[in-house]
Amino acid sequence: MFEAAELGHKIDKATYKDEVPKLREQLLDVQFELGEKKAFPVVLIVSGVDGAGKGETVNTLNFWMDPRNIHTHALGEPTDEENERPAMWRYWRALPPKGNIGVFFGSWYSFPMREHIEHGKGQDYLDSYLDDFLRFERMLADEGALILKFWLHLSKKDVKKKLKELEGDKATKWRVSKKDWDRYDLYDKMRPVAEHVMRRTSTGHAPWIVVESGDEKYRNLTVGRTILKAIRGRLEQQGKSSGASVPVAAIQENVDGVNMLDKLDYTLSLTKKDYAKQLELYQGRLSRLCRSPKFRDRSMLLVFEGNDAAGKGGSIRRVTAALDSRFYDIIPIAAPTDEEKVQPYLWRFWRHLPRKGHVAIFDRSWYGRVLVERVEGFCSEADWLRAYGEINDFEEQIARHGGIVQKFWLSITSEEQLSRFNEREATGYKRFKLTDEDWRNRDKWDVYSEAVCDMVERTSTELAPWTLVEANSKYFARIKVLKTLCERLESEL
Amino acid sequence: MFEAAELGHKIDKATYKDEVPKLREQLLDVQFELGEKKAFPVVLIVSGVDGAGKGETVNTLNFWMDPRNIHTHALGEPTDEENERPAMWRYWRALPPKGNIGVFFGSWYSFPMREHIEHGKGQDYLDSYLDDFLRFERMLADEGALILKFWLHLSKKDVKKKLKELEGDKATKWRVSKKDWDRYDLYDKMRPVAEHVMRRTSTGHAPWIVVESGDEKYRNLTVGRTILKAIRGRLEQQGKSSGASVPVAAIQENVDGVNMLDKLDYTLSLTKKDYAKQLELYQGRLSRLCRSPKFRDRSMLLVFEGNDAAGKGGSIRRVTAALDSRFYDIIPIAAPTDEEKVQPYLWRFWRHLPRKGHVAIFDRSWYGRVLVERVEGFCSEADWLRAYGEINDFEEQIARHGGIVQKFWLSITSEEQLSRFNEREATGYKRFKLTDEDWRNRDKWDVYSEAVCDMVERTSTELAPWTLVEANSKYFARIKVLKTLCERLESEL
Repeated sequence: MFEAAELGHKIDKATYKDEVPKLREQLLDVQFELGEKKAFPVVLIVSGVDGAGKGETVNTLNFWMDPRNIHTHALGEPTDEENERPAMWRYWRALPPKGNIGVFFGSWYSFPMREHIEHGKGQDYLDSYLDDFLRFERMLADEGALILKFWLHLSKKDVKKKLKELEGDKATKWRVSKKDWDRYDLYDKMRPVAEHVMRRTSTGHAPWIVVESGDEKYRNLTVGRTILKAIRGRLEQQGKSSGASVPVAAIQENVDGVNMLDKLDYTLSLTKKDYAKQLELYQGRLSRLCRSPKFRDRSMLLVFEGNDAAGKGGSIRRVTAALDSRFYDIIPIAAPTDEEKVQPYLWRFWRHLPRKGHVAIFDRSWYGRVLVERVEGFCSEADWLRAYGEINDFEEQIARHGGIVQKFWLSITSEEQLSRFNEREATGYKRFKLTDEDWRNRDKWDVYSEAVCDMVERTSTELAPWTLVEANSKYFARIKVLKTLCERLESEL
Repeated sequence: MFEAAELGHKIDKATYKDEVPKLREQLLDVQFELGEKKAFPVVLIVSGVDGAGKGETVNTLNFWMDPRNIHTHALGEPTDEENERPAMWRYWRALPPKGNIGVFFGSWYSFPMREHIEHGKGQDYLDSYLDDFLRFERMLADEGALILKFWLHLSKKDVKKKLKELEGDKATKWRVSKKDWDRYDLYDKMRPVAEHVMRRTSTGHAPWIVVESGDEKYRNLTVGRTILKAIRGRLEQQGKSSGASVPVAAIQENVDGVNMLDKLDYTLSLTKKDYAKQLELYQGRLSRLCRSPKFRDRSMLLVFEGNDAAGKGGSIRRVTAALDSRFYDIIPIAAPTDEEKVQPYLWRFWRHLPRKGHVAIFDRSWYGRVLVERVEGFCSEADWLRAYGEINDFEEQIARHGGIVQKFWLSITSEEQLSRFNEREATGYKRFKLTDEDWRNRDKWDVYSEAVCDMVERTSTELAPWTLVEANSKYFARIKVLKTLCERLESEL
């Protein structure tokens, strides 16, 4: 894999001097078009052998291009705010919006590679990270990002030569420390690991590009031209394409029309007296659970979805009544803001992940993609089909980091909805809760039901289960929500 | 001050039961209007004596109102990301957008009051914080925020009674710790301090409202009704008002037409050879300065403003060429995003404050308010007039926290601008740098010049000086920028 990068590539001074101005002008050109059109985000990873000039390369790029829409991220030790979220959170928050270029120094690959090479973490450990990265990059690519991963390569001999050169010059001597020589000693160990990483994670949509870096002029030109070609190619492609290609639907047909929502028992109910008693009971239990010292090191994400008028708000209110308002936040999901629109779909949910000891309650959620967006055609079929996997991955990351994800579908019958709509129309202060859209959605009852069933089937996991809540009786629904929460917390803490 | 809150106010159970549903409905009503209109942000501070029920009050409010656009912030110890910015940064990031309610538990007042009462910090220390808060709240109010500061009061006797009660009940015993009794012992010390704070910081636009809290029903109703009345009143007022009242202009007339920009020597220039030599010299110096260990504990904010085509981009590029791209970020300032539009003017700059050891370079900046927004009438006269003070305050906060703020105005003559515009029109890849707006701005040369002079006069401070850069010669300008930066850093580090 690295053989082609040990050929002694070189560019002479005169050629370089000749080529750079042309390249710069072209880079500025495509960059301008990229920015003006807010065409797509560009994710550049600059990684490689120590001493191969990662820093110089990034600085050169910044100098060549319009530095106003490039942002470089050299993420060192995570901050405490980052440590309280899943590992990829810090990268999500640094993602470039459409039209921008994000340069990731070392990037997500650095940490597990270092742990594996320097601190003896095993192959499985490394590979499980690589799987995460593959999914992450797949998602970025599906969201339209252009991803280029540069590996700047130097042979062991060249690393030694470089370090000696730096040490020999008074002006650069300070740049070489014992750590650099320690790393040099690890070269033979590092090389096959780097090969392994590249083999596993070089994909069509996010390729590794190995660049021989013994000659800085060759290195800079190669990196610059590769970026130019890739951005230009994508811009041309975007100009031509007439929308994303539609995959064959991977959803099975429901041939007998029976679905799990129909099978729920909508007659379940509670008397007012029983409700009052159980409400107090479960709210007390929930309150104690969330106050428990064990919860301080966890976090909880609650998702409330359901038919219009199924009583999401009322259920949420009964949950929050048991919580301390200092430790929860309700996130109502409406249309994305313009900062959210230029980011991958899940970005606007990542930004709301709770800190430890906190509860985030989503009133509607990322499931909008496979519900309203699917049904109304707000996204392509390809987009919502891949959303199931992306969502499972998202929730798994949260769960692995100690987050408790609990999802509720509040289900009512069509008749019950109609009567609640009518009641809302009649009641003054409830009128604002009913919109024309609610009536339109009602006309699509069956299509929505199908989407709900697919959603539950594909995203109810051990780590992040769905609870279907029979909600024709508000009392029953609220208690079921509270009870489910208590039991879940008891099993988790 | 607290006498009126020791009268033994009480609400009987029946009245409470009667009043609460009405109050809730009205609260939901105004809250809905507030949210729909994105009318203004509501900032609620809930502070007061320990044991007076701050938590219960906030929880009650959350329960009564639609919890989806209330967010409660109980900011404890600052995180490391917060510690690397000025003290108010954490509050800026938590500000409610228009249409939302932000509840601040204890709020910005807690920290300096505790330091003063419990840790012996002097009166001056406390008062300097109070001055900051006054300016902050003034700014919020001017930006349209509704600010209510509740102080929940209990007499010393009542605190004791409350603690005893809690201790006496098995279910609540755990809530009383030694710390609570220690705080009780400080009551006599706390009370005059609280009075002092309230006297100094109770203003028409951000009043303190002292609420007797011995009876929770009285307390809840009082807080709820006060909020209702305030939001409703403001909504009505907004409906009526025909724009902000315009203050008498506080800018002096320039009667002889001579200004500081005219007095600059635009013939200053450098030969290419001298430029090359000095460029290397100063870039080397700047590079060493920013690499210095002393800089790791500081941060730097550079502001580049100037006439169109004055060479801001070129100057920035010569600065960044000397820096490591891992430690700087360029923030081009264009139109605000929709998330920024629903926040106070300076919010979008606060969010970009650099961490320690980092440099933030603003290509255009917060000065847009007193330049383009003033000239084009994008904001009211009252808004840009108050901006001078707000900006000075903003920069002072950064400086006090160790940030180095350096501002450049790149100045060219009208003739030079014309020739650069013409050149841009003629050169293919530079054409995109010239827009119709640039030509329109040019027609307003004199008005812009006046705005620039006012700006420099009012915002060039010891802590955050403006450097006027004669920029008819690009070479001269770039070197002057670099030299100024080096000298500034040398004096700071």
